[in-house]
Amino acid sequence: MNVKIVGRIIGALLLLEAAFMAPSALLCLYDGDKNPAVCFAAAILLACLFGALLLLWARRGQPLFYAQEGFVATGLSWIVMSLVGALPFWFSRAIPSFVDALFEIVSGFTTTGASILSDVEALPRGLLLWRSFSHWLGGMGMLVFLLAVVPVARRGTGANIHLMRAESPGPSVGKLTPKLQGTALILYGMYMLLTVLDILFLLLGGMPLFDALCTAFGTAGTGGFGIKNDSLAGYSPYLQTVTTVFMLLFGVNFSLYFLLLLRRFKGFFLDEELRLYLGVTFGAIALIAFNIRGLFASLGAALHHAAFQVASVITTTGFSTLDFDQWPDLSKGILLVLMCLGACAGSTGGGLKMARVLLLLKGLRRNLRQTLNPRRIQLMRVNGQTIGEDVLDNTNAYLVAYCALVVGSFLLVSFDGFSVFTNLSAVIACFNNIGPGFDGVGAARNFGLYSDFSKLILTMDMLLGRLEIYPILALFSRHTWNRKL
Amino acid sequence: MNVKIVGRIIGALLLLEAAFMAPSALLCLYDGDKNPAVCFAAAILLACLFGALLLLWARRGQPLFYAQEGFVATGLSWIVMSLVGALPFWFSRAIPSFVDALFEIVSGFTTTGASILSDVEALPRGLLLWRSFSHWLGGMGMLVFLLAVVPVARRGTGANIHLMRAESPGPSVGKLTPKLQGTALILYGMYMLLTVLDILFLLLGGMPLFDALCTAFGTAGTGGFGIKNDSLAGYSPYLQTVTTVFMLLFGVNFSLYFLLLLRRFKGFFLDEELRLYLGVTFGAIALIAFNIRGLFASLGAALHHAAFQVASVITTTGFSTLDFDQWPDLSKGILLVLMCLGACAGSTGGGLKMARVLLLLKGLRRNLRQTLNPRRIQLMRVNGQTIGEDVLDNTNAYLVAYCALVVGSFLLVSFDGFSVFTNLSAVIACFNNIGPGFDGVGAARNFGLYSDFSKLILTMDMLLGRLEIYPILALFSRHTWNRKL
Repeated sequence: MNVKIVGRIIGALLLLEAAFMAPSALLCLYDGDKNPAVCFAAAILLACLFGALLLLWARRGQPLFYAQEGFVATGLSWIVMSLVGALPFWFSRAIPSFVDALFEIVSGFTTTGASILSDVEALPRGLLLWRSFSHWLGGMGMLVFLLAVVPVARRGTGANIHLMRAESPGPSVGKLTPKLQGTALILYGMYMLLTVLDILFLLLGGMPLFDALCTAFGTAGTGGFGIKNDSLAGYSPYLQTVTTVFMLLFGVNFSLYFLLLLRRFKGFFLDEELRLYLGVTFGAIALIAFNIRGLFASLGAALHHAAFQVASVITTTGFSTLDFDQWPDLSKGILLVLMCLGACAGSTGGGLKMARVLLLLKGLRRNLRQTLNPRRIQLMRVNGQTIGEDVLDNTNAYLVAYCALVVGSFLLVSFDGFSVFTNLSAVIACFNNIGPGFDGVGAARNFGLYSDFSKLILTMDMLLGRLEIYPILALFSRHTWNRKL
Repeated sequence: MNVKIVGRIIGALLLLEAAFMAPSALLCLYDGDKNPAVCFAAAILLACLFGALLLLWARRGQPLFYAQEGFVATGLSWIVMSLVGALPFWFSRAIPSFVDALFEIVSGFTTTGASILSDVEALPRGLLLWRSFSHWLGGMGMLVFLLAVVPVARRGTGANIHLMRAESPGPSVGKLTPKLQGTALILYGMYMLLTVLDILFLLLGGMPLFDALCTAFGTAGTGGFGIKNDSLAGYSPYLQTVTTVFMLLFGVNFSLYFLLLLRRFKGFFLDEELRLYLGVTFGAIALIAFNIRGLFASLGAALHHAAFQVASVITTTGFSTLDFDQWPDLSKGILLVLMCLGACAGSTGGGLKMARVLLLLKGLRRNLRQTLNPRRIQLMRVNGQTIGEDVLDNTNAYLVAYCALVVGSFLLVSFDGFSVFTNLSAVIACFNNIGPGFDGVGAARNFGLYSDFSKLILTMDMLLGRLEIYPILALFSRHTWNRKL
């Protein structure tokens, strides 16, 4: 393990985080919220101090950088970033317990949107902005941002690709341009463009600027923190529909938008993952709308709410327009399954990802054929390209880790004594970065009921889900810390 | 597809089934239950007729036999066997609906033990015997029995190993002796011996002979059909403890008992699957006993019931001594997880099997190590032996199929409108061949509440679970029926 280069990355990230906290601090000043402003200043100061110290300590060192360094740097970055990001909530006593504050900001960075707060409207606007902005930062990843703007490691060491692989969601990361910095820039460019579009559409519908910013951040990162206690229920149907559309847009693989920019429309529309994503989405909307039609005055209203909720859950955002825990059990069952599936790889959404679902099902079909005809060799193709065995192996291992961690967390969280459905949906909602679950952690409730122990487990689940397990598991591997460089 | 040889196997199996129905018919006569006796006679006659016709039709034909024929013969055999086995219930109007009768006998053969009957005590003893005996037959598999006694296919065609692979549970089938017929004989020999021992211990505790027979059949097959409405609650603690011990014994890989017979004790006690199985079992007993201690007068009583229920669920038997749906949610959560894990490969138990859990976790660990150190090649070992990539590939594909089928069935069953927990536990209980689930299908209730459509889905799940997916999926594969021989 090359610890110095890891230190350098974390140091740079802390400085970046300090810069990103500044707008929230300024908003506190503008609003005259003195106490939170001071707390933000303290957090910014601490971040700068530790960042600078780390950079100083690690200024010299070998440039060696392997996959391992990528995972460890990513895992540690996210933990350190969260510990520092929780400080404004804790210092300002807006969230008196540090475990709660940590849960809240990890929920932000991992774009989960699960909250321990029962009254978010009581929070100063500066804190609300930081809470929502953390979604936007975590959605695309702060390390990817760092890659786009700063040369963290020397060229040719492979550092960039290892970092990007570790932080980006999905079974494989494609370069859009020969240089990775270019890829990161393009991704963030499209991300910003879509976010700005979302804000504009929301403003057109008469949403106040602050609300539009926060809502757009939550939508872009597919996060789900609201700034109202009833999430998006109080906004007009137009604003809800805009959010539905943008949630779905942010659930698409960003590489596909690049294809659109290049005018390669065929590649866009023939993409198998996109087709699966849209097929599942519209199928679920139709089924749920039919199932809940009796609860609404018109089929149109049922469709409206079904579309919003399906988009919110499949993209793992977690906004709500009503308490879907009150829906019939068929609809709840469908939403529970969608929670596990998640959106497309390379989007800001969480979950297993459609690309993995596609790979796993194709792998199963191939295995079945091979078992029936052992003498025929079967290749696997996605979008016409042959899939390497290593990709399938990794995806299979991912499914195992996913199941094992969900089951393990479910058992640990069960010690608190809440209902099986509450615990199962809490773990699924956190691991897949959705936010609200069902029953005790439904859309109308929050995660405050759990003990500190369970909150820490769920916090870990959110990180495991966002970073897709390996960067966090790598931190616990004996092999990581075994060999001195 | 060599359809003639498949026909021959099914024909022979029908004759065998007719013979196995005879004792139940005789018991009806002995008890003076005329109507059921006539119904049994009709079913036996039909089985003989169809079996003879099939054998006649298929008497000549090529001996070619591949993996495909093994899967198809196994899948079809079990379906035909169930259709015929359901007749006595249906003819006698003991179960007036054929779908219900089919559900009941498939639940028997697959050793599930899920029932649609609310009052089993009203059934004639002959039908109860057939119900329980179907567990015993399905536990080790009637095709394996056929292998042991009749040479179905010509030597050297590989028919026997393909059939045995398709019907036996677990990721790989080991031959105990050079000849497969010998292996089948040894397996059935040990199975009978253990069953007889169980019966003796039950008789020693004062259980009536008929009860002892039925209970032992249900225990040996890890089935779970009781002959009392309250399952085993009415029997003495001694009888319950005997059943606890034998359930656990029947959950062990039978090849290990062969090691004991050969006095290779080290191989027995160092077996990694056995250790995992016992570790999980005793861990779960301790946790649940601690969790439910408040519900009982003494810790001893809590331990007694915890041990019984854990043994019943982990071996996928499904007997109960009380309504564990009333236990605290931590205990219910643990039982739900145990339901999915299941017992050892090569036992009569269902579920994912400990061997697969072991393989999946080791595969995950290897994948993690390989991801961290891509240049090192890592081998996987179980019990000191290197595991081939194909075994791991098959196990991974199995997990995918398992998850996909559980999720799909859960969604289909959800249309009936029962609670999410009811539906989820119903599918898990059927797919893993356990029997009772939770909530609407808890130990004190039955599966009668579901619609015929859902019952057929759950029936299919039981078959998929018992035959480990592929023999049933093979029937639906275009490739199976595509090519004429």
